[in-house]
Amino acid sequence: MARDHTQTCPIAGALNIIGDHWTLLIVREAMYGATRFGEFQHNTGIAKNLLASRLDMLVATGLFERIAFADRGTTHTYRLTEKGRALEGVMAAITLWSNAHIYGKGAEPVVMVDRASGLPVTDMQLLNAAGDGVGKKAIDYTPGPGASTATIKRLAARVA
Amino acid sequence: MARDHTQTCPIAGALNIIGDHWTLLIVREAMYGATRFGEFQHNTGIAKNLLASRLDMLVATGLFERIAFADRGTTHTYRLTEKGRALEGVMAAITLWSNAHIYGKGAEPVVMVDRASGLPVTDMQLLNAAGDGVGKKAIDYTPGPGASTATIKRLAARVA
Repeated sequence: MARDHTQTCPIAGALNIIGDHWTLLIVREAMYGATRFGEFQHNTGIAKNLLASRLDMLVATGLFERIAFADRGTTHTYRLTEKGRALEGVMAAITLWSNAHIYGKGAEPVVMVDRASGLPVTDMQLLNAAGDGVGKKAIDYTPGPGASTATIKRLAARVA
Repeated sequence: MARDHTQTCPIAGALNIIGDHWTLLIVREAMYGATRFGEFQHNTGIAKNLLASRLDMLVATGLFERIAFADRGTTHTYRLTEKGRALEGVMAAITLWSNAHIYGKGAEPVVMVDRASGLPVTDMQLLNAAGDGVGKKAIDYTPGPGASTATIKRLAARVA
């Protein structure tokens, strides 16, 4: 693994956990219901040593929990925590982008469906603190309460 | 770089482009307005050879375009295409998750603000094809028109 990013930035902080070639496929499998090492390995095609290190990382960072389980050679299973489950929005956003811009209309490999209406999920909308929808291209990025001096300086210099 | 994923899957397809430690930081910089090699390098801290290869990949995959530009030693600049700009939803979803689950309330490094209302952006909602909001945990994943046999089999076996 690459050395952790030290920038105080939501993207950099997330990349320290999910910024590699495999981790989101492991998360995908967990969201599809996989819990055993062998299932993750078989369904992603990841090498076993790499899977073991990624699962250790996912437990250490609190996205997965390891649960004792004794059955047919399995000693424990892995489940998403609330923090891991909360990646659903990220997975959905990636799926929308990938279907639209990598595979294209009519060639989507996986389509999300709204269980209530039976309609496909085709877009996403950001919501402001009042619960109102935010228009696209209507977002500004501002330093938060945890911004470092470097982040404050970077955002001040950005082109709006 | 790791060998490309061959699974027909929106997550795998996206990871072939953005699934590494640095690419989304380069995209972040472009969204903040960076256009020159030196800006990307300085603002992310990435090694120059790695940045050159990532920019080549981003141009080859159609997320960035290289524009001829002659000024003070710079021969070209880089700009997001529509495909690259469309990653804004992914970046926003990561920012929401990271602020909530890595940094936590009161320690967010960067806050998105709705320009129209001035309120912070605090959540996201998926929309179905009729434009209606989709409830959380109300999504099903189904094979799309471009699903491979393996994807169809994988989704049939999932735990709902």
